[in-house]
Amino acid sequence: MAHLIYEYTANLASEADIAGLLLKSNRALIAQSGLFPVGGIRSRAIRLDDWCMADGEADYGFVHATLKIGAGRNKGERQATGDAVFAVIMEHFAGLYSRRYLALSMELYEFDEAGTWKHNNVHAKFRR
Amino acid sequence: MAHLIYEYTANLASEADIAGLLLKSNRALIAQSGLFPVGGIRSRAIRLDDWCMADGEADYGFVHATLKIGAGRNKGERQATGDAVFAVIMEHFAGLYSRRYLALSMELYEFDEAGTWKHNNVHAKFRR
Amino acid sequence: MAHLIYEYTANLASEADIAGLLLKSNRALIAQSGLFPVGGIRSRAIRLDDWCMADGEADYGFVHATLKIGAGRNKGERQATGDAVFAVIMEHFAGLYSRRYLALSMELYEFDEAGTWKHNNVHAKFRR
Repeated sequence: MAHLIYEYTANLASEADIAGLLLKSNRALIAQSGLFPVGGIRSRAIRLDDWCMADGEADYGFVHATLKIGAGRNKGERQATGDAVFAVIMEHFAGLYSRRYLALSMELYEFDEAGTWKHNNVHAKFRR
Repeated sequence: MAHLIYEYTANLASEADIAGLLLKSNRALIAQSGLFPVGGIRSRAIRLDDWCMADGEADYGFVHATLKIGAGRNKGERQATGDAVFAVIMEHFAGLYSRRYLALSMELYEFDEAGTWKHNNVHAKFRR
Repeated sequence: MAHLIYEYTANLASEADIAGLLLKSNRALIAQSGLFPVGGIRSRAIRLDDWCMADGEADYGFVHATLKIGAGRNKGERQATGDAVFAVIMEHFAGLYSRRYLALSMELYEFDEAGTWKHNNVHAKFRR
Protein backbone atom coordinates (compact mmCIF):
# COMPACT_ATOMS: atom_id res chain seq x y z
CA MET A 1 0.00 0.00 0.00
CA ALA A 2 1.79 3.10 -1.27
CA HIS A 3 -0.23 6.29 -1.12
CA LEU A 4 1.01 9.58 -2.48
CA ILE A 5 -0.90 12.80 -1.84
CA TYR A 6 0.08 16.02 -3.55
CA GLU A 7 -1.18 19.40 -2.43
CA TYR A 8 -0.49 22.25 -4.83
CA THR A 9 -1.40 25.91 -4.76
CA ALA A 10 -3.89 27.11 -7.37
CA ASN A 11 -1.48 29.69 -8.79
CA LEU A 12 0.51 26.80 -10.26
CA ALA A 13 -2.46 25.02 -11.81
CA SER A 14 -2.20 26.25 -15.39
CA GLU A 15 1.41 25.07 -15.71
CA ALA A 16 1.52 22.13 -13.32
CA ASP A 17 0.56 19.21 -15.63
CA ILE A 18 -0.81 17.27 -12.67
CA ALA A 19 -1.80 14.24 -14.72
CA GLY A 20 1.79 13.93 -15.91
CA LEU A 21 3.14 14.34 -12.40
CA LEU A 22 0.94 11.57 -11.04
CA LEU A 23 1.79 9.13 -13.82
CA LYS A 24 5.54 9.75 -13.49
CA SER A 25 5.28 9.36 -9.72
CA ASN A 26 3.56 6.00 -10.04
CA ARG A 27 6.19 4.85 -12.51
CA ALA A 28 8.93 5.82 -10.08
CA LEU A 29 7.25 3.77 -7.36
CA ILE A 30 6.72 0.82 -9.70
CA ALA A 31 10.43 0.98 -10.58
CA GLN A 32 11.45 0.39 -6.94
CA SER A 33 12.29 -3.27 -7.64
CA GLY A 34 9.08 -4.81 -6.40
CA LEU A 35 9.00 -2.92 -3.10
CA PHE A 36 5.46 -1.78 -3.85
CA PRO A 37 2.91 -4.06 -5.52
CA VAL A 38 1.64 -2.22 -8.61
CA GLY A 39 -2.02 -2.67 -7.70
CA GLY A 40 -1.54 -0.90 -4.39
CA ILE A 41 0.00 2.32 -5.71
CA ARG A 42 -2.37 5.29 -5.50
CA SER A 43 -1.44 8.92 -6.12
CA ARG A 44 -3.70 11.95 -6.12
CA ALA A 45 -3.49 15.74 -6.12
CA ILE A 46 -5.50 18.28 -4.19
CA ARG A 47 -5.71 21.81 -5.51
CA LEU A 48 -5.44 24.46 -2.82
CA ASP A 49 -7.57 27.50 -3.51
CA ASP A 50 -6.96 29.08 -0.11
CA TRP A 51 -3.40 29.28 1.14
CA CYS A 52 -0.88 31.63 2.68
CA MET A 53 2.85 31.19 2.48
CA ALA A 54 5.46 33.01 4.56
CA ASP A 55 4.40 36.67 4.99
CA GLY A 56 1.79 36.42 2.24
CA GLU A 57 3.33 39.45 0.50
CA ALA A 58 4.31 37.88 -2.84
CA ASP A 59 2.99 35.37 -5.33
CA TYR A 60 4.40 32.35 -3.56
CA GLY A 61 3.49 28.83 -4.61
CA PHE A 62 4.13 25.44 -3.14
CA VAL A 63 3.75 21.74 -3.72
CA HIS A 64 3.79 19.39 -0.76
CA ALA A 65 3.81 15.62 -1.15
CA THR A 66 2.95 13.10 1.54
CA LEU A 67 4.16 9.61 0.76
CA LYS A 68 2.58 6.97 2.97
CA ILE A 69 3.93 3.45 2.85
CA GLY A 70 3.44 0.28 4.80
CA ALA A 71 5.92 -0.55 7.51
CA GLY A 72 8.56 -3.15 6.80
CA ARG A 73 10.87 -1.51 4.27
CA ASN A 74 14.32 -0.81 5.69
CA LYS A 75 15.96 2.58 6.00
CA GLY A 76 17.86 2.29 2.75
CA GLU A 77 14.75 1.27 0.86
CA ARG A 78 12.77 4.14 2.34
CA GLN A 79 15.50 6.63 1.47
CA ALA A 80 15.81 5.33 -2.09
CA THR A 81 12.03 5.48 -2.55
CA GLY A 82 11.80 9.01 -1.24
CA ASP A 83 14.76 10.10 -3.36
CA ALA A 84 13.18 8.62 -6.47
CA VAL A 85 9.83 10.35 -5.97
CA PHE A 86 11.41 13.66 -5.03
CA ALA A 87 13.61 13.47 -8.13
CA VAL A 88 10.40 13.25 -10.17
CA ILE A 89 9.03 16.31 -8.38
CA MET A 90 12.23 18.32 -8.86
CA GLU A 91 12.42 17.48 -12.56
CA HIS A 92 8.72 18.06 -13.12
CA PHE A 93 8.75 21.52 -11.57
CA ALA A 94 12.25 22.59 -12.66
CA GLY A 95 10.92 25.08 -15.18
CA LEU A 96 8.53 26.74 -12.73
CA TYR A 97 11.15 26.71 -9.99
CA SER A 98 13.59 28.61 -12.18
CA ARG A 99 11.23 31.51 -12.81
CA ARG A 100 8.96 32.00 -9.79
CA TYR A 101 8.76 31.65 -6.00
CA LEU A 102 8.19 27.99 -5.34
CA ALA A 103 8.65 25.58 -2.45
CA LEU A 104 8.74 21.85 -3.10
CA SER A 105 8.60 19.48 -0.18
CA MET A 106 7.85 15.89 0.68
CA GLU A 107 7.37 13.89 3.83
CA LEU A 108 7.61 10.14 4.17
CA TYR A 109 5.22 8.50 6.60
CA GLU A 110 4.94 4.85 7.54
CA PHE A 111 1.64 3.19 8.33
CA ASP A 112 1.52 1.14 11.46
CA GLU A 113 0.87 -2.29 9.96
CA ALA A 114 -1.28 -3.17 12.96
CA GLY A 115 -3.54 -0.36 11.95
CA THR A 116 -4.40 -0.83 8.29
CA TRP A 117 -7.27 -2.60 6.57
CA LYS A 118 -7.39 -3.48 2.87
CA HIS A 119 -9.69 -4.94 0.22
CA ASN A 120 -8.46 -4.51 -3.33
CA ASN A 121 -9.39 -6.30 -6.53
CA VAL A 122 -6.75 -4.52 -8.63
CA HIS A 123 -3.96 -6.71 -7.27
CA ALA A 124 -5.46 -9.70 -9.08
CA LYS A 125 -4.94 -7.99 -12.43
CA PHE A 126 -1.20 -7.69 -11.86
CA ARG A 127 -0.79 -11.22 -10.57
CA ARG A 128 -1.97 -12.71 -13.83
CA MET B 1 -12.03 13.21 19.37
CA ALA B 2 -12.64 10.73 16.53
CA HIS B 3 -11.94 12.08 13.08
CA LEU B 4 -12.64 10.09 9.94
CA ILE B 5 -11.48 11.34 6.55
CA TYR B 6 -12.54 9.62 3.35
CA GLU B 7 -10.84 10.25 0.04
CA TYR B 8 -12.65 8.82 -2.98
CA THR B 9 -11.93 8.98 -6.68
CA ALA B 10 -14.33 10.99 -8.82
CA ASN B 11 -15.19 8.02 -11.04
CA LEU B 12 -17.11 6.58 -8.09
CA ALA B 13 -19.05 9.73 -7.30
CA SER B 14 -22.32 9.00 -9.03
CA GLU B 15 -22.76 5.70 -7.21
CA ALA B 16 -20.95 6.35 -3.93
CA ASP B 17 -23.78 7.72 -1.73
CA ILE B 18 -21.28 9.64 0.35
CA ALA B 19 -23.89 11.08 2.71
CA GLY B 20 -25.01 7.56 3.55
CA LEU B 21 -21.45 6.39 4.06
CA LEU B 22 -20.70 9.19 6.51
CA LEU B 23 -23.85 8.69 8.54
CA LYS B 24 -23.31 4.92 8.80
CA SER B 25 -19.69 5.48 9.78
CA ASN B 26 -20.66 7.83 12.60
CA ARG B 27 -23.23 5.34 13.83
CA ALA B 28 -20.58 2.62 13.89
CA LEU B 29 -18.34 4.87 15.98
CA ILE B 30 -21.19 5.83 18.30
CA ALA B 31 -21.92 2.11 18.78
CA GLN B 32 -18.43 1.49 20.22
CA SER B 33 -19.76 1.35 23.79
CA GLY B 34 -18.93 4.87 24.78
CA LEU B 35 -15.35 4.81 23.55
CA PHE B 36 -15.98 7.98 21.57
CA PRO B 37 -18.12 10.81 22.91
CA VAL B 38 -20.84 11.47 20.34
CA GLY B 39 -20.14 15.19 20.16
CA GLY B 40 -16.54 14.60 19.11
CA ILE B 41 -17.20 12.34 16.14
CA ARG B 42 -16.52 14.06 12.81
CA SER B 43 -16.42 12.38 9.41
CA ARG B 44 -15.91 13.98 6.00
CA ALA B 45 -15.21 13.00 2.42
CA ILE B 46 -12.90 14.58 -0.12
CA ARG B 47 -13.55 13.98 -3.78
CA LEU B 48 -10.39 13.35 -5.80
CA ASP B 49 -10.58 14.77 -9.29
CA ASP B 50 -6.94 14.08 -10.09
CA TRP B 51 -5.56 10.65 -9.31
CA CYS B 52 -3.56 7.81 -10.77
CA MET B 53 -3.71 4.25 -9.58
CA ALA B 54 -1.27 1.45 -10.42
CA ASP B 55 -0.20 1.78 -14.09
CA GLY B 56 -3.02 4.18 -14.89
CA GLU B 57 -4.11 1.96 -17.78
CA ALA B 58 -7.65 1.09 -16.65
CA ASP B 59 -10.61 2.74 -14.95
CA TYR B 60 -9.39 2.08 -11.44
CA GLY B 61 -11.10 3.61 -8.44
CA PHE B 62 -10.26 3.78 -4.78
CA VAL B 63 -11.55 4.87 -1.40
CA HIS B 64 -9.06 5.50 1.39
CA ALA B 65 -10.13 6.22 4.95
CA THR B 66 -7.99 7.75 7.66
CA LEU B 67 -9.38 7.23 11.14
CA LYS B 68 -7.74 9.46 13.73
CA ILE B 69 -8.47 8.84 17.38
CA GLY B 70 -7.14 10.11 20.65
CA ALA B 71 -4.56 8.02 22.47
CA GLY B 72 -5.70 5.93 25.42
CA ARG B 73 -7.81 3.16 23.87
CA ASN B 74 -6.19 -0.25 24.18
CA LYS B 75 -5.19 -2.52 21.33
CA GLY B 76 -8.40 -4.54 21.43
CA GLU B 77 -10.53 -1.41 21.44
CA ARG B 78 -8.58 0.02 18.52
CA GLN B 79 -8.92 -3.21 16.54
CA ALA B 80 -12.65 -3.47 17.22
CA THR B 81 -13.17 0.15 16.21
CA GLY B 82 -11.23 -0.25 12.98
CA ASP B 83 -13.02 -3.50 12.19
CA ALA B 84 -16.41 -1.87 12.74
CA VAL B 85 -15.69 1.09 10.45
CA PHE B 86 -14.10 -1.06 7.77
CA ALA B 87 -17.12 -3.38 7.87
CA VAL B 88 -19.25 -0.33 7.05
CA ILE B 89 -16.98 0.51 4.12
CA MET B 90 -16.98 -3.07 2.78
CA GLU B 91 -20.77 -3.31 2.99
CA HIS B 92 -21.32 0.15 1.55
CA PHE B 93 -19.16 -0.49 -1.50
CA ALA B 94 -19.93 -4.20 -1.98
CA GLY B 95 -21.97 -3.59 -5.11
CA LEU B 96 -19.34 -1.42 -6.77
CA TYR B 97 -16.57 -3.79 -5.71
CA SER B 98 -18.32 -6.70 -7.40
CA ARG B 99 -18.45 -5.03 -10.80
CA ARG B 100 -15.43 -2.71 -11.22
CA TYR B 101 -11.80 -2.20 -10.26
CA LEU B 102 -11.85 -0.84 -6.74
CA ALA B 103 -9.45 -0.61 -3.83
CA LEU B 104 -10.77 0.01 -0.33
CA SER B 105 -8.33 0.82 2.43
CA MET B 106 -8.19 2.34 5.87
CA GLU B 107 -5.48 3.43 8.25
CA LEU B 108 -5.82 3.98 11.97
CA TYR B 109 -3.83 6.80 13.47
CA GLU B 110 -3.55 7.88 17.08
CA PHE B 111 -3.19 11.50 18.11
CA ASP B 112 -0.48 12.26 20.59
CA GLU B 113 -2.61 13.50 23.49
CA ALA B 114 0.13 15.96 24.37
CA GLY B 115 -0.44 17.54 21.05
CA THR B 116 -4.15 18.22 20.67
CA TRP B 117 -6.25 21.27 21.46
CA LYS B 118 -10.04 21.31 21.64
CA HIS B 119 -12.98 23.67 22.10
CA ASN B 120 -16.36 22.13 21.32
CA ASN B 121 -19.86 23.21 22.29
CA VAL B 122 -21.51 20.13 20.77
CA HIS B 123 -20.50 17.94 23.71
CA ALA B 124 -22.87 19.87 25.95
CA LYS B 125 -25.84 18.80 23.82
CA PHE B 126 -25.12 15.14 24.43
CA ARG B 127 -24.47 15.54 28.13
CA ARG B 128 -27.99 16.80 28.73
CA MET C 1 9.11 23.52 7.54
CA ALA C 2 5.88 24.46 9.27
CA HIS C 3 2.74 23.28 7.51
CA LEU C 4 -0.74 24.17 8.73
CA ILE C 5 -3.80 22.53 7.17
CA TYR C 6 -7.29 23.71 8.05
CA GLU C 7 -10.39 21.71 7.23
CA TYR C 8 -13.67 23.56 7.67
CA THR C 9 -17.25 22.59 7.03
CA ALA C 10 -19.04 24.38 4.22
CA ASN C 11 -21.81 25.66 6.51
CA LEU C 12 -19.23 28.04 8.00
CA ALA C 13 -17.91 29.34 4.69
CA SER C 14 -19.85 32.57 4.42
CA GLU C 15 -18.68 33.79 7.82
CA ALA C 16 -15.28 32.11 8.15
CA ASP C 17 -12.95 34.75 6.61
CA ILE C 18 -10.48 32.04 5.64
CA ALA C 19 -7.97 34.44 4.13
CA GLY C 20 -7.81 36.32 7.42
CA LEU C 21 -7.44 33.12 9.39
CA LEU C 22 -4.49 31.98 7.28
CA LEU C 23 -2.68 35.28 7.45
CA LYS C 24 -3.10 35.55 11.24
CA SER C 25 -1.94 31.96 11.64
CA ASN C 26 1.22 32.61 9.66
CA ARG C 27 1.90 35.71 11.72
CA ALA C 28 1.55 33.68 14.90
CA LEU C 29 4.08 31.17 13.60
CA ILE C 30 6.47 33.93 12.48
CA ALA C 31 6.22 35.42 15.97
CA GLN C 32 7.59 32.24 17.57
CA SER C 33 11.04 33.80 18.05
CA GLY C 34 12.70 32.35 15.00
CA LEU C 35 11.58 28.77 15.62
CA PHE C 36 10.18 28.60 12.10
CA PRO C 37 12.00 30.21 9.15
CA VAL C 38 9.51 32.56 7.48
CA GLY C 39 10.03 31.11 4.02
CA GLY C 40 9.02 27.65 5.16
CA ILE C 41 5.65 28.56 6.69
CA ARG C 42 2.71 27.30 4.60
CA SER C 43 -0.93 27.34 5.62
CA ARG C 44 -3.97 26.28 3.61
CA ALA C 45 -7.65 25.57 4.06
CA ILE C 46 -9.78 22.84 2.59
CA ARG C 47 -13.53 23.34 2.40
CA LEU C 48 -15.52 20.26 3.32
CA ASP C 49 -18.71 19.91 1.30
CA ASP C 50 -19.52 16.43 2.60
CA TRP C 51 -19.35 15.84 6.33
CA CYS C 52 -21.24 14.37 9.22
CA MET C 53 -20.75 15.32 12.83
CA ALA C 54 -22.03 13.44 15.88
CA ASP C 55 -25.52 12.08 15.15
CA GLY C 56 -25.94 14.29 12.09
CA GLU C 57 -29.22 15.63 13.50
CA ALA C 58 -28.38 19.33 13.78
CA ASP C 59 -26.50 22.00 11.88
CA TYR C 60 -23.13 21.18 13.38
CA GLY C 61 -19.93 22.74 12.05
CA PHE C 62 -16.30 22.14 12.72
CA VAL C 63 -12.80 23.40 11.99
CA HIS C 64 -9.89 21.02 12.41
CA ALA C 65 -6.28 22.17 12.10
CA THR C 66 -3.28 19.93 11.56
CA LEU C 67 0.01 21.62 12.38
CA LYS C 68 3.01 19.75 11.03
CA ILE C 69 6.45 20.82 12.11
CA GLY C 70 9.95 19.50 11.74
CA ALA C 71 11.42 17.53 14.62
CA GLY C 72 13.88 19.25 16.92
CA ARG C 73 11.80 21.76 18.85
CA ASN C 74 11.52 20.89 22.53
CA LYS C 75 8.32 20.21 24.43
CA GLY C 76 7.97 23.74 25.70
CA GLU C 77 8.49 25.19 22.25
CA ARG C 78 5.94 22.81 20.75
CA GLN C 79 3.39 23.65 23.45
CA ALA C 80 3.91 27.39 23.03
CA THR C 81 3.58 27.10 19.27
CA GLY C 82 0.38 25.09 19.50
CA ASP C 83 -1.04 27.44 22.11
CA ALA C 84 -0.30 30.44 19.91
CA VAL C 85 -1.98 29.00 16.82
CA PHE C 86 -4.97 27.71 18.76
CA ALA C 87 -5.39 31.13 20.35
CA VAL C 88 -5.69 32.54 16.84
CA ILE C 89 -8.34 29.95 16.00
CA MET C 90 -10.31 30.60 19.21
CA GLU C 91 -10.25 34.35 18.68
CA HIS C 92 -11.06 34.09 14.98
CA PHE C 93 -14.12 31.91 15.53
CA ALA C 94 -15.28 33.38 18.84
CA GLY C 95 -18.32 35.04 17.27
CA LEU C 96 -19.47 31.92 15.46
CA TYR C 97 -18.78 29.79 18.52
CA SER C 98 -21.03 31.95 20.65
CA ARG C 99 -24.04 31.52 18.41
CA ARG C 100 -23.98 28.09 16.75
CA TYR C 101 -22.84 24.48 17.19
CA LEU C 102 -19.13 24.49 16.48
CA ALA C 103 -16.16 22.28 17.28
CA LEU C 104 -12.65 23.69 17.02
CA SER C 105 -9.70 21.33 17.23
CA MET C 106 -6.04 21.11 16.40
CA GLU C 107 -3.44 18.41 16.35
CA LEU C 108 0.32 18.87 16.39
CA TYR C 109 2.37 16.45 14.36
CA GLU C 110 6.12 16.21 14.04
CA PHE C 111 7.81 15.18 10.80
CA ASP C 112 10.46 12.55 11.10
CA GLU C 113 13.48 14.58 9.97
CA ALA C 114 14.93 11.47 8.33
CA GLY C 115 11.88 11.45 6.12
CA THR C 116 11.55 14.91 4.61
CA TRP C 117 12.85 16.39 1.36
CA LYS C 118 12.91 20.10 0.54
CA HIS C 119 13.72 22.52 -2.27
CA ASN C 120 12.57 26.08 -1.63
CA ASN C 121 13.62 29.35 -3.25
CA VAL C 122 11.50 31.48 -0.91
CA HIS C 123 14.01 31.14 1.92
CA ALA C 124 16.52 33.22 -0.05
CA LYS C 125 14.14 36.19 -0.03
CA PHE C 126 14.08 36.28 3.76
CA ARG C 127 17.80 35.80 4.16
CA ARG C 128 18.51 39.04 2.30
